[in-house]
Amino acid sequence: MVDLPIIGVLGGMGPYAGLDLVKKVFAETRGDSDQGHLPVALLSYSHRIADRTDYVLGRTAENPGHAIAEVAHDLASIGVRIAGIPCNSAHEPVIFGVITRSLADTDLRIPHLIDETVQHIRELLPSVQRIGCLSTLSVHRTGLYRDAVKAAGLTPIMCDDHVAEHVVHCAIYDHEWGIKAHSSPVTPRAQELVLEGIRHVRERGAEAVILGCTELPLAVSKAEGVVCVDPVRALARALIRETSPSKLKPLCRD
Amino acid sequence: MVDLPIIGVLGGMGPYAGLDLVKKVFAETRGDSDQGHLPVALLSYSHRIADRTDYVLGRTAENPGHAIAEVAHDLASIGVRIAGIPCNSAHEPVIFGVITRSLADTDLRIPHLIDETVQHIRELLPSVQRIGCLSTLSVHRTGLYRDAVKAAGLTPIMCDDHVAEHVVHCAIYDHEWGIKAHSSPVTPRAQELVLEGIRHVRERGAEAVILGCTELPLAVSKAEGVVCVDPVRALARALIRETSPSKLKPLCRD
Repeated sequence: MVDLPIIGVLGGMGPYAGLDLVKKVFAETRGDSDQGHLPVALLSYSHRIADRTDYVLGRTAENPGHAIAEVAHDLASIGVRIAGIPCNSAHEPVIFGVITRSLADTDLRIPHLIDETVQHIRELLPSVQRIGCLSTLSVHRTGLYRDAVKAAGLTPIMCDDHVAEHVVHCAIYDHEWGIKAHSSPVTPRAQELVLEGIRHVRERGAEAVILGCTELPLAVSKAEGVVCVDPVRALARALIRETSPSKLKPLCRD
Repeated sequence: MVDLPIIGVLGGMGPYAGLDLVKKVFAETRGDSDQGHLPVALLSYSHRIADRTDYVLGRTAENPGHAIAEVAHDLASIGVRIAGIPCNSAHEPVIFGVITRSLADTDLRIPHLIDETVQHIRELLPSVQRIGCLSTLSVHRTGLYRDAVKAAGLTPIMCDDHVAEHVVHCAIYDHEWGIKAHSSPVTPRAQELVLEGIRHVRERGAEAVILGCTELPLAVSKAEGVVCVDPVRALARALIRETSPSKLKPLCRD
């Protein structure tokens, strides 16, 4: 038996986003039996990893990159050579830099979720120019997606600050009815706020919208009049392409 | 920060059943934020693990217990002390014995899925006596559930051999439309056959029915006139109870 490279998943940010990435790896793989699927190792140690958004916004001093790097070392110790982090905020340079520096002495590589998402848009939607960006408040403020979209020659369409904070961010984080508190199923209130955020950027001219927090695709996968882009799917496809390209399903719009 | 014991999952049997167990661990945990969830390590190395049913039926010579034990050692090496196997057939004594003997020199324990399921029925449905047993053909023939149900003082209601082979087993294994080939979503044809199997044991007097292959709860969670019992949920609850009992949600019939 030829052994296959293992796809690592640094999960727990949040727990359901980690599961979602694994599910999308399976969904994007050609395989009609157990044995036809690719090997995946998911470490979902959410209790160890401080909130990424709180850190980027300066609300906590603990850089979650250190804990993420520790978990990545566990993956490396069981033979994993490539791993995805299904959390957009963890790709902020102040966090992602800590992780990649810590892994410099290992063989483990981490594809960059944001870059893979922008590349995915160019492949999937070559004629689309105006890209809406929904995210947590920290990613909104730092402009992580805005800058990556611009660097690719596309036009970012951002939420206004009020919508970013009181609509999209609340949909993700509210302790009573937010997606992190209720992911399976998502509450109707959270779902409605995500749709409101999508309508907002569509009205500002977006032709496609990046659901740029891994909780968002748990709430909404489609919306009227605009193509929803799921960074978790882009990352799943990148992980398959980098490990077992012949098993990657053809790209299709839904 | 107090570290928490990690819940291990020996997945890949099949891939979606492993995911389903992780999802049910999260669903049965009290937690309203990422940090409130329990740590989980899932190794889904389906390509290494030969089909359990084929081995029990004598169709292949390779005992999948050896490969499962190897993966379990990987879990042990990253600090996991308890792990579940979301595959009913892997708990046949000829397979499960190989795994537990191989782990004798480690701290890793594997709760027994079948025993946990029967215990779960007694807690959830204390007044129910007649228990239908649906499963793969190998578990049907060896009587794994039949004997465990009997040992608990309950009455097993089995499928006739034709239904076991041409209805329930086909729903799981058909390469075109079976649940292992199409798990997300399950095909209508596979779902209808699972419901046919449930009606069959209900007509034979079952008050509750064990969905005794981890693919079956992916197709059906409820049926008319009979309570469906999900071994994966029983295992998820056992894993939480054995690691972080204060985080276990109260038992409810939903």
